[in-house]
Amino acid sequence: MTGTTDKTLWRGARLATLDGAQPWGWVERGALITEGEHIAWVGPEAELPAGLAPAIEHDLGGAVLTPGLIDSHTHLVYGGRRAREFELRLQGASYEEIARAGGGIRSTVAATRAADAASLQAQAQRRLDTLIGEGVTTVEVKSGYGLDLESEARCLRAARALQGAQLRTSYLGAHALPPEFQGRQDEYVDAVCAWMPQLQREGLIDAVDAFCEGIGFTPAQTRRVFEAARTLGLPVKLHAEQLSDQGGTQLACEFGALSCDHLEYLSPEGVQALAASGTVATLLPGAYYFLRETKLPPVAALREAGVPIAISTDHNPGTSPTLSLLLMLNMACTLFRLTPEEALRGVTQHAARALGLADRGRLAPGLRADFCVWDVEHPNELSYYFGRNPLRQRVWGGKLS
Amino acid sequence: MTGTTDKTLWRGARLATLDGAQPWGWVERGALITEGEHIAWVGPEAELPAGLAPAIEHDLGGAVLTPGLIDSHTHLVYGGRRAREFELRLQGASYEEIARAGGGIRSTVAATRAADAASLQAQAQRRLDTLIGEGVTTVEVKSGYGLDLESEARCLRAARALQGAQLRTSYLGAHALPPEFQGRQDEYVDAVCAWMPQLQREGLIDAVDAFCEGIGFTPAQTRRVFEAARTLGLPVKLHAEQLSDQGGTQLACEFGALSCDHLEYLSPEGVQALAASGTVATLLPGAYYFLRETKLPPVAALREAGVPIAISTDHNPGTSPTLSLLLMLNMACTLFRLTPEEALRGVTQHAARALGLADRGRLAPGLRADFCVWDVEHPNELSYYFGRNPLRQRVWGGKLS
Ligand SMILES: [Zn+2]
Ligand SMILES: [Zn+2]
Repeated sequence: MTGTTDKTLWRGARLATLDGAQPWGWVERGALITEGEHIAWVGPEAELPAGLAPAIEHDLGGAVLTPGLIDSHTHLVYGGRRAREFELRLQGASYEEIARAGGGIRSTVAATRAADAASLQAQAQRRLDTLIGEGVTTVEVKSGYGLDLESEARCLRAARALQGAQLRTSYLGAHALPPEFQGRQDEYVDAVCAWMPQLQREGLIDAVDAFCEGIGFTPAQTRRVFEAARTLGLPVKLHAEQLSDQGGTQLACEFGALSCDHLEYLSPEGVQALAASGTVATLLPGAYYFLRETKLPPVAALREAGVPIAISTDHNPGTSPTLSLLLMLNMACTLFRLTPEEALRGVTQHAARALGLADRGRLAPGLRADFCVWDVEHPNELSYYFGRNPLRQRVWGGKLS
Repeated sequence: MTGTTDKTLWRGARLATLDGAQPWGWVERGALITEGEHIAWVGPEAELPAGLAPAIEHDLGGAVLTPGLIDSHTHLVYGGRRAREFELRLQGASYEEIARAGGGIRSTVAATRAADAASLQAQAQRRLDTLIGEGVTTVEVKSGYGLDLESEARCLRAARALQGAQLRTSYLGAHALPPEFQGRQDEYVDAVCAWMPQLQREGLIDAVDAFCEGIGFTPAQTRRVFEAARTLGLPVKLHAEQLSDQGGTQLACEFGALSCDHLEYLSPEGVQALAASGTVATLLPGAYYFLRETKLPPVAALREAGVPIAISTDHNPGTSPTLSLLLMLNMACTLFRLTPEEALRGVTQHAARALGLADRGRLAPGLRADFCVWDVEHPNELSYYFGRNPLRQRVWGGKLS
């Protein structure tokens, strides 16, 4: 490797590359060379290529460096507020009183439909900025609060226009039944499938998602959504086994799903299906915590079966109003008993895989130069603390940002 | 009121004064006048005193203003790290393996004793800065990791030297048994009592605390510590009924304790004792969460009995490594079912009372001008979100800081 003027050297780092066989992919005295948006070289500082003449050199003074964080499951774009509903519930209000006060997902759908593109985007940008402030460099955003073609498109466009991180969008038309389809759930599924080609043509869909649940859509309806996706060559993912075992995971794996998400009620058959299809299990401890669930996802069985586990905020106004992916690391450990290393892999390496992205999530040559510099002694501190943000610097596409 | 040059007007605020009979002490279009370190006037903007000529005027543009936050129970000063112990535990290490790897409170005691004053203070200052970043203006800090006279004094001095918030220190010599007193717990209690006058003479003690528990000190030993405190005219508080019902609360109330803290196992008799003595019940949801406790403190009974409830981080390296008091608001609501208003009063009004401070915790004339300006629509959002910091500005002693 010869020196060129567009190379940047990051030295004096303690690297959690998450690459290779070492725990954490650890390199105690490491260095990293970036070239444009990508990583050109990673390794021990003592083995730096000779003759390197970087244009810029940063000495990180022994700080810990990890891949940039990836939040692979969010509902960042929506209108309205649900804090009052949260308060009413804690004051002991009944379901009817809350509905009358305009609570529930229907209130979010109404507010989202009423919001214009600029305001949807501005609100989502503020939420994204909070995630970015903790080192997030890639974010998935789902639709699912528009529930008509025009509103779903508006939300997906707003998501793709967000700034400061790489965005992936999932079409979640099959999130809830809009009021105008009351009693006509199958017709609504027809509509969700019918809107798909147009949204795809506009370049708004990276993956197709659905909510397969007693209070959501049946496996048969989910299958129809997935078949429409397959026809268009779109990958699928699924909100599966959150409140009951519907067998949605097995169905999703039949379609080679990128990920199945939630999974508190996942069966042994579901674990095997994930392992066989190489589908990522995405755990969402924020929703588990906020809903005061008590049934834990089968982490030991997933681990045993070698299923990659991702962790995400599931940010949404009804069941997971969190904007801290770092807090999810602690919750994944404290509530779900992941190890700190598993938790970190869950918001980097395996989160990338849950989005079908092979070019990020580890520190290795050729991958995107997305990484975080942390004021910690060891990356296990990222999981140990809760409610503390030790991010010193975020590098996104090779640039400090 | 006539204009003077040292008055500052804060207008265009939506005030949660926590004063008066209104929910939240709410003033929809409010204003506040500060004079030096204190509040001179609070009320509706339309009723601002005539002829006011403030030296400075801030228009807050409709932002929500609350009293500055008060973290009334922390262990901010200590040496060492416990993240590795957290990791080992999640990797399935046994108690013995962790002890051999240098885990547990003894490791913190050893590291604290080994640390010099400057490093103890510097580490604690970083922790405090994180709390301050969320709007904390008053913090209580306990000793209890030194466990010998010189080390306890060093920790209390470090706590009182912290910058950026008002500090209150509690002497918690009766936190754990140091190794050199192994098998001689009563002799250690003698020592704790014997050190007290000297620490008081140096001005290091605002209150005396103890850990009354099966794995801590007995009620009889706690009583001896409290008697020593009473002799010196020092107020007391207690770590009580965290893991079992020891009747520590009734004992503490006999001594007119400022607060009893934790209280998961509090009995009906304990609730009545708190109500009768006007002692604050301080709930610590971070420790409850991190230890995966399942027994909830008797919130309904406390509410019914009119016991003031405070909320705190209990920041400590072993059982509550959190540095977010805002997160504790959400945990108090989500886990303990407090209302958002109760949670906010718990980190302001009632936290002040838990420290024996009558000059803060609400927005009212004559009180300290410690307050927070929040980028929220309503203060219920401070509890609704978890892992989000909407602080726009902190005012401490009348100054933006
Ligand atoms: Zn979701
Ligand atoms: Zn404590």
